[in-house]
Amino acid sequence: MIPTRAPTTEGVALAARKVAEILPAPPLLPLEVEGRTIWCKAECLQPVGAFKIRGAWHRLTALTQAERTAGVVGVSSGNHAQGVAWAARRLGVKAAIVMPVDAPEVKLANTRALGAEVVLYDRPGGEDRDEVAERLCKEREATLVHAYADPWIIEGQGSTGTEIAAQMAVLAGGPPELIVAPCGGGGLTAGLALACPNARIVPVEPEGWDDVCRSLAAGRIERVLPDAPATACDALQTPATRPINFAILQERCPFGVAVSAAEVRAAQRLAFAKLRLVVEPGGAAGLAAVLAGKITLSERSAVVLSGGNTDARAFVRVLSTAD
Amino acid sequence: MIPTRAPTTEGVALAARKVAEILPAPPLLPLEVEGRTIWCKAECLQPVGAFKIRGAWHRLTALTQAERTAGVVGVSSGNHAQGVAWAARRLGVKAAIVMPVDAPEVKLANTRALGAEVVLYDRPGGEDRDEVAERLCKEREATLVHAYADPWIIEGQGSTGTEIAAQMAVLAGGPPELIVAPCGGGGLTAGLALACPNARIVPVEPEGWDDVCRSLAAGRIERVLPDAPATACDALQTPATRPINFAILQERCPFGVAVSAAEVRAAQRLAFAKLRLVVEPGGAAGLAAVLAGKITLSERSAVVLSGGNTDARAFVRVLSTAD
Repeated sequence: MIPTRAPTTEGVALAARKVAEILPAPPLLPLEVEGRTIWCKAECLQPVGAFKIRGAWHRLTALTQAERTAGVVGVSSGNHAQGVAWAARRLGVKAAIVMPVDAPEVKLANTRALGAEVVLYDRPGGEDRDEVAERLCKEREATLVHAYADPWIIEGQGSTGTEIAAQMAVLAGGPPELIVAPCGGGGLTAGLALACPNARIVPVEPEGWDDVCRSLAAGRIERVLPDAPATACDALQTPATRPINFAILQERCPFGVAVSAAEVRAAQRLAFAKLRLVVEPGGAAGLAAVLAGKITLSERSAVVLSGGNTDARAFVRVLSTAD
Repeated sequence: MIPTRAPTTEGVALAARKVAEILPAPPLLPLEVEGRTIWCKAECLQPVGAFKIRGAWHRLTALTQAERTAGVVGVSSGNHAQGVAWAARRLGVKAAIVMPVDAPEVKLANTRALGAEVVLYDRPGGEDRDEVAERLCKEREATLVHAYADPWIIEGQGSTGTEIAAQMAVLAGGPPELIVAPCGGGGLTAGLALACPNARIVPVEPEGWDDVCRSLAAGRIERVLPDAPATACDALQTPATRPINFAILQERCPFGVAVSAAEVRAAQRLAFAKLRLVVEPGGAAGLAAVLAGKITLSERSAVVLSGGNTDARAFVRVLSTAD
């Protein structure tokens, strides 16, 4: 079901034009970190609270009329879900989203509020979300909109990089030399790599879910280990990247970085205090790596704050923790 | 010490050009409220976390070289303080800010971090901040930069309206018909009135601190009553508006609206959940009035989210309250 063409730089440029027609570019906010300016791309300010709206829009607008009529099936812990639901509602396409039963309440509620059908699967119980989605697609003759292993999705997420480059040209006097981004399956990271061919791209994952870090080190796709610890970064809980993503990452990312839960919380607190932004754990992973000093900064460095969908209760715990 | 010329529409246009040279326009974010779109101007995303940076920049860039050398004195509960400190640092001007001892910690810390000298006064003890500031100005031959009773400050804050009008033309198909804004002394409200001559302008104050509401009703400037209750809206705790502001408000605002503490908290929680923004109590007052159904909306309505400087502890309390 997954299209097999490779995503391209031209595809990113097209996606960026399509996205610019309907979504104002979220701001690129300066953050002073030990005397240097880090440019923070506030994707948490997108209408669904995450960059995922970009890929979903690029993908769904590329469907044929017959495909639109049959509908789409998405798989997501929540942000891709909302992106697909948003694009589907806007285009009058029926959308079903396969989501884990333990997804954050706010993500489940928002996806339903956007008019999508939510089909729950038992992640903690070991059900495979891709199998559930493929079964649904067959039953309904619907198109699978994969969260990251899809050329349109990759190109759409890449429009984030197109905007960063345009904004930094004005604000920082030149294009980004470094872009740090949270990494789940590698859709955003691969898209950024296509969008900004001259920038270093560093994917950041939560500890224990650092399959992309290990894959880059090993030179082949490695899966998350079966005993991976619980993580607050629900948006980054993907079992493995895919060849369509890894082909790009392998070429453009010498390494990835893993961050601890405490480092993520510290980044969320700094975004609260200095940027007045609500950033969810997975969305703050890139900033966490920068603050922890795990990435050598460039003269012009950008970080993607990729999402802001977090329950009030979870955010209260983060703000109340002193680590 | 306070300049007495009247602020003008041309002055707002000039301020808007000066501000646009150094500060990217904060986004105008759509918020769905009972089937209508409210356009939220996210001034909490300004570098100092509030719109006050606008007036301060317009005022300080208008100083003569001799005035710059002598320095400035500001009076503020915190947001104007940071605006003046930010502009002063950028222009190499010495700034002293008179702030209440009970100002939010984050505002005191940020003002000092911007290099300004903080002079505390005892608000709860009844000390008059304007007297403290005027004494300092005399001692140092410094220029008083009043938080709202100053034509440059009013014009500078008005640039918020210039941006709203430009953004709504693109996003909403036309200029704002209604702008709802938090109101302390009336600097922002008066500026918005000058910037958007065809929009209804509604100032919103916290209950008990609704001196502008009462002034508009009475047709003359009324002061906050001596037994005014405590309010979380520190940014809106001004004892009275001034003739330079009231002359404009009286002409353009038929009435003001007062909001309760619970209404303000509900607005902060909605901004958290739906906009992923950290908005301080005073910054959320306008949105609170809209959500409470206290203002008849127009086809194209905008609300200013004027600031986002709040301590983590205070924000945790807001998110944890169920009202």
